[in-house]
Amino acid sequence: MTTETTAPDEPWRDPRLSTARRVRDLVARMTQQEKIAQLQGVWTGIDAAGEMAPHQHEFAVTPHDFDELTRHGIGQLTRVFGTRPVAPEVGAHSLARTQRKIVEASRFGIPAMVHEECLTGLAAWQATVYPSPLCWGATFEPDLIRRMAAKFGESMRRLGVHQGLAPVLDVARDLRWGRVEETIGEDPHLVGLIGSAYVAGLESAGVVATLKHFAGYSASRAGRNLAPVPIGPRELADVLLPPFEMALRAGARSVMNSYADNDGVPVAADQTMLTERLRDEYGFTGTVVADYFSVAFLHKLHGVAADREDAAAQALTAGIDVELPTVDCYGEPLLAGLGSGRVDQALVDRALTRVLTQKCDLGLLDPGHSPVPEAGVDLDDPESRALAREIAERSIVLLHNDGVLPLTGKRLAVIGPRADEPGAMMGCYSFPLHVGVHHPDVPMGVEVPTVLDALRAEHDVVFARGCPVLGGTDDEIAEAVATARLSEVCVVVLGDQAGLFGKGTSGEGCDIPDLKLPGRQEELLEAVLGTGMPVVLVLLSGRPYDISRQIDRLAAVVCGFYPGEEGGPALAGVLSGRINPSGRLPVGFPGAGSSQPSTYLAATLGTRSEVSTVDPTPLFPFGHGLSYAPATWVAVGCEEREWPTDGTCRVHVVLRNDMEIATSEVVQIYLHDPVAEVARPVRQLIGAVKVDLAPGQTRTVTAELHADLTAYTGRTYQRQVDPGDVELHVGTSSANVHSRLRLTMTGSPRVVGFDRALVPEFDTP
Amino acid sequence: MTTETTAPDEPWRDPRLSTARRVRDLVARMTQQEKIAQLQGVWTGIDAAGEMAPHQHEFAVTPHDFDELTRHGIGQLTRVFGTRPVAPEVGAHSLARTQRKIVEASRFGIPAMVHEECLTGLAAWQATVYPSPLCWGATFEPDLIRRMAAKFGESMRRLGVHQGLAPVLDVARDLRWGRVEETIGEDPHLVGLIGSAYVAGLESAGVVATLKHFAGYSASRAGRNLAPVPIGPRELADVLLPPFEMALRAGARSVMNSYADNDGVPVAADQTMLTERLRDEYGFTGTVVADYFSVAFLHKLHGVAADREDAAAQALTAGIDVELPTVDCYGEPLLAGLGSGRVDQALVDRALTRVLTQKCDLGLLDPGHSPVPEAGVDLDDPESRALAREIAERSIVLLHNDGVLPLTGKRLAVIGPRADEPGAMMGCYSFPLHVGVHHPDVPMGVEVPTVLDALRAEHDVVFARGCPVLGGTDDEIAEAVATARLSEVCVVVLGDQAGLFGKGTSGEGCDIPDLKLPGRQEELLEAVLGTGMPVVLVLLSGRPYDISRQIDRLAAVVCGFYPGEEGGPALAGVLSGRINPSGRLPVGFPGAGSSQPSTYLAATLGTRSEVSTVDPTPLFPFGHGLSYAPATWVAVGCEEREWPTDGTCRVHVVLRNDMEIATSEVVQIYLHDPVAEVARPVRQLIGAVKVDLAPGQTRTVTAELHADLTAYTGRTYQRQVDPGDVELHVGTSSANVHSRLRLTMTGSPRVVGFDRALVPEFDTP
Repeated sequence: MTTETTAPDEPWRDPRLSTARRVRDLVARMTQQEKIAQLQGVWTGIDAAGEMAPHQHEFAVTPHDFDELTRHGIGQLTRVFGTRPVAPEVGAHSLARTQRKIVEASRFGIPAMVHEECLTGLAAWQATVYPSPLCWGATFEPDLIRRMAAKFGESMRRLGVHQGLAPVLDVARDLRWGRVEETIGEDPHLVGLIGSAYVAGLESAGVVATLKHFAGYSASRAGRNLAPVPIGPRELADVLLPPFEMALRAGARSVMNSYADNDGVPVAADQTMLTERLRDEYGFTGTVVADYFSVAFLHKLHGVAADREDAAAQALTAGIDVELPTVDCYGEPLLAGLGSGRVDQALVDRALTRVLTQKCDLGLLDPGHSPVPEAGVDLDDPESRALAREIAERSIVLLHNDGVLPLTGKRLAVIGPRADEPGAMMGCYSFPLHVGVHHPDVPMGVEVPTVLDALRAEHDVVFARGCPVLGGTDDEIAEAVATARLSEVCVVVLGDQAGLFGKGTSGEGCDIPDLKLPGRQEELLEAVLGTGMPVVLVLLSGRPYDISRQIDRLAAVVCGFYPGEEGGPALAGVLSGRINPSGRLPVGFPGAGSSQPSTYLAATLGTRSEVSTVDPTPLFPFGHGLSYAPATWVAVGCEEREWPTDGTCRVHVVLRNDMEIATSEVVQIYLHDPVAEVARPVRQLIGAVKVDLAPGQTRTVTAELHADLTAYTGRTYQRQVDPGDVELHVGTSSANVHSRLRLTMTGSPRVVGFDRALVPEFDTP
Repeated sequence: MTTETTAPDEPWRDPRLSTARRVRDLVARMTQQEKIAQLQGVWTGIDAAGEMAPHQHEFAVTPHDFDELTRHGIGQLTRVFGTRPVAPEVGAHSLARTQRKIVEASRFGIPAMVHEECLTGLAAWQATVYPSPLCWGATFEPDLIRRMAAKFGESMRRLGVHQGLAPVLDVARDLRWGRVEETIGEDPHLVGLIGSAYVAGLESAGVVATLKHFAGYSASRAGRNLAPVPIGPRELADVLLPPFEMALRAGARSVMNSYADNDGVPVAADQTMLTERLRDEYGFTGTVVADYFSVAFLHKLHGVAADREDAAAQALTAGIDVELPTVDCYGEPLLAGLGSGRVDQALVDRALTRVLTQKCDLGLLDPGHSPVPEAGVDLDDPESRALAREIAERSIVLLHNDGVLPLTGKRLAVIGPRADEPGAMMGCYSFPLHVGVHHPDVPMGVEVPTVLDALRAEHDVVFARGCPVLGGTDDEIAEAVATARLSEVCVVVLGDQAGLFGKGTSGEGCDIPDLKLPGRQEELLEAVLGTGMPVVLVLLSGRPYDISRQIDRLAAVVCGFYPGEEGGPALAGVLSGRINPSGRLPVGFPGAGSSQPSTYLAATLGTRSEVSTVDPTPLFPFGHGLSYAPATWVAVGCEEREWPTDGTCRVHVVLRNDMEIATSEVVQIYLHDPVAEVARPVRQLIGAVKVDLAPGQTRTVTAELHADLTAYTGRTYQRQVDPGDVELHVGTSSANVHSRLRLTMTGSPRVVGFDRALVPEFDTP
């Protein structure tokens, strides 16, 4: 920090004044062009970037002169580190240079906000690739995820990055959707719990978290990316919005809109969503940033705006404050709209005030602000790697085990396209798969041991790929079968190649029509099963696949999703028994002959099989996961029989570890509401906690549940708590209930709002 | 008619008084038990019936003493002819006996309304089985369907049946849904056009048409029967409701509720749907009857009612007037609710008034009313058969033809499980498949020549089944291949076995997870294609299936859906060239790797393939169909460039037949609205007409289109007509546009209601 005197006639520079006062002053001083410049992102590297977003090149047609742009200031800089492989130090100094240029060239000298993608860690070269969101969900451990986001948030702050475009809080609704891999799962409570922890961690490092994609995106028709969303207001309110509410309360300072239209209205033009709901009801005061190109989409793809000026006007009216990734509708078209009076000045000033308020709060308006980053940034230091390992170890889900696991000193055949592939460990928003794929000559930037590498360190191993993720030959499958016969146990590692828009089998734009394993992988699995050898299936995938045809013949199944750069050793640890698996499924696996979309959160008629020849029963339900040392459930009870509609009830679960190794249990509490104003899910998670148990240890978990947790959206669209009978189903998955606790909600019906209780209080002495 | 004197103290019996006066008098005289008796259906044969409805036996647990019931009167009799095979004369006399008993045993002597299913003709033994609704849609000829309904309606009236539980006006939204076969297609305009014609025909015979299932049912999640419906108010208003509006205006006097919940609220308990929308907005004055058991569903399956009394109260409040199929919640539970005051007397009187008004209008309250049916009822007379044949001939869709068709004197191999099966001609609501299957020893009741029968009459034919619809053996497929080699052309007849709840591959409760042909039929097709012989595929199915993998190798494809009892000869006529096919697809065929749900009525982002790896482009689009003699499109034009928002525009299409046989063209007019308040379908049918052309004939079709046809539901949920540019896309399918006519809608924005223009005026001199 340097010290400067503040000119008395420039209150906006004075840190002693209130933010509101400073911002008001600045708004009053700015020209129209200076104002709109603050609402624009600029993506200087876009021409060199690959196709990372839909219609990227169609919409970023006009290369803007950077020097010209800086004259009026710049609102946001887009992905300085995340556009091409740049060494962190080099990127940081280049960023500092750019910021200095912006500060010097413009009248007020306000630096740009800098945003990056950071879903599974900062999406930058040489940065730690953490496990993907489905893994976070599988841990059921918010604190781990908070630590993760705090850790990489700290490095982002040090690099000069102010905002991260994460987390994704969309609730998975259709497993065919390519972005399921970016979600935390199919349950809003779990998504909110883990997503909030991410937000708390990132914000604790001083980095603005961006909640996306507000809201509806994941419910697109047939799970097709960007397709219209057929949804009613109750499903929106009870399934898709709660994670956003939870994360806003955790301190998120930015929100990004959903690309799609909900029942016809694109969210980028939807005032009821972005202003009435988000601002008026939730009290949100941060910034709303556009998902890339989505302002122009209003004109080009949604057909709700007549031209780019109209698109800008509608987006501003709805409540989009900043156009990303780069100036388009919020440039000349917006200026023209202001000139002609078609755009209300007050809308620009409203957005500007929000942007400047955030910049002010971040210190960017302070006289002494220096854009020079701190030196010596190691984005993949041992601490980060250890944390990535810990999350991976705690997230792996043992789905099925006939006793073959753990593998003790067995001779292994390791088979499958995902066994010896570092890319198998990561999702489409990791730097290597998002950006690195466009630079095949540049090293990946982080060390990523594969499953094969890690198993070789502990076992006698033979290996055959069998087939690639897509395609392959009969010969290679035959070779894999021959390799299998050389072993005592086969470990078959199958799954996805994550990527964007056709570059992967999962990821943004990589939707699928059914849940068969990609390519010839099912055929490979059948061939290996045909040997009669015991087969352990390891899945490294962005979504659950249909393994119902093989399950009866598989010795064990381990699901890793994308476990990140330390996922290989973590998986090897689980397979060998060094790690006792404790992950639980954040998304169910599809049953034989089932169909999508499907959710465990279905009302009775969505779950019964006698009314349709399509049986929705999952093969492995939400919440399912095995352990090498299952905890003993000693007792489950509730202190109360009555539960006031404005009060709490307390549930106790006594767990004991009768085994000789440490173990963990995830206690899951589901609500069953037998009679309500609307058809409600048969079972809905309202609380979950992971409990570690040393050998011989007994622990009592107490959950204090506020009646608000039973709230739902009734006939009149209010979120309400009803008196009447309810049941709490306490168990180890959404299908495995240990105890049903019957309670009567007493007192008056209540209408609850944004400030309602959203999570139970857990006490686990 | 007998003559009686009316007692001056019994105004309700006096036909000279107004219906309202008579009904008011009667309501005032009735006891509580007499009142609720009028709201009940009674299904005397239910114990003997097979499982025809979901939960039938679970919900019809209490056998009621018929004599006891008749003491208070009976509102409706359920399926006197449609429960088991009964000769029409016998059934009619038995019905007359029952009605006499009801009249004599009760104080007021009011006969019961008698209802039957009549989707593809009266669902009774020995009655004509007409083509199924998809065929009606394929004709694009409302007048044919009006004649059909009038024809069988006449026979229903003569049998003493007052009400038919048809037509199904659900718009197909997901091809996996088993009841797609009962719909008229995927386009609301076509469904409404044809459905209205059905209603006009049935009502012209004096029989009450029942519109079902109001509304939402077809949009259930993943196309699973009865599953929750994720839908917003705009999709409901713009896609699912218009057919009901059109059919109500055509004079339908009854409506049946959808079983499912829309965004959580079961329609049977939804006052906004059954009262605010249907009564207050649409002005409907007839009766709302419950879909079978759906009142009890509110308690047992939806979980919105605490008990059967609560279910009755909610259903009555919402607006369900009559409980079907048999007394349950509207019996003792309703009486108890009235006694305790939990049910408002006014609600019972409201429903009663509607029921009695309908009975009065039907003459059932008149002193001279005789329940004795007319004698000599032939339900499958030559006229009916001829009409069934005509509809079949006009509905068959030629999807693809490399020139192999028509077959002229070729030696044919006829292959496939649907080639020699009368049941292949009919859907799950035909009497033989709905009821007859439970009586395997009883003859089908009507003569149904198969495709094989019909082809044998014209060609030199060898036959092999190849496989059943489900299952089969390698040997039988090999035998079919050997048979194929004996011929010059193979006709492979594949498709569905219709049935209910697991008894079929299509039909109510027979949903599927994907669109592969059932069983080993695709394998059979591949085996026959493997011979290298030219293969003509004939589909007899309840839904389009995925034939994208074979289409490039198929010589021709003919789609018959379920063409009814005369479908065999009709198909043979098309194959041999005796009939020039003129049907057009009412539902598109799925493209390679596409997914469901899918609709041609998608906004831009639901149609583009670059945003998702799942390409929604259909193999054959909605509206597609070939001819042996394609009409020449001479000119397309519009008189106006401006189209007042309260006025009309006139589109002309000049067609000429340059071929040597008679032909037909279906002129299809689609709306494209480039900019609207919400994302609108890229293309949406607003008018269609089939035009017959003699050899050498030139005809000019003129369509006068009212601006109301451009109406849609905007941001504020009003149905509105906007000024601005629109395009009319005129062509031969939803994907094959001959001309785009650009027009500017001028004048003020308008809000339109139930009385808006719904169809164009066509002039085809």
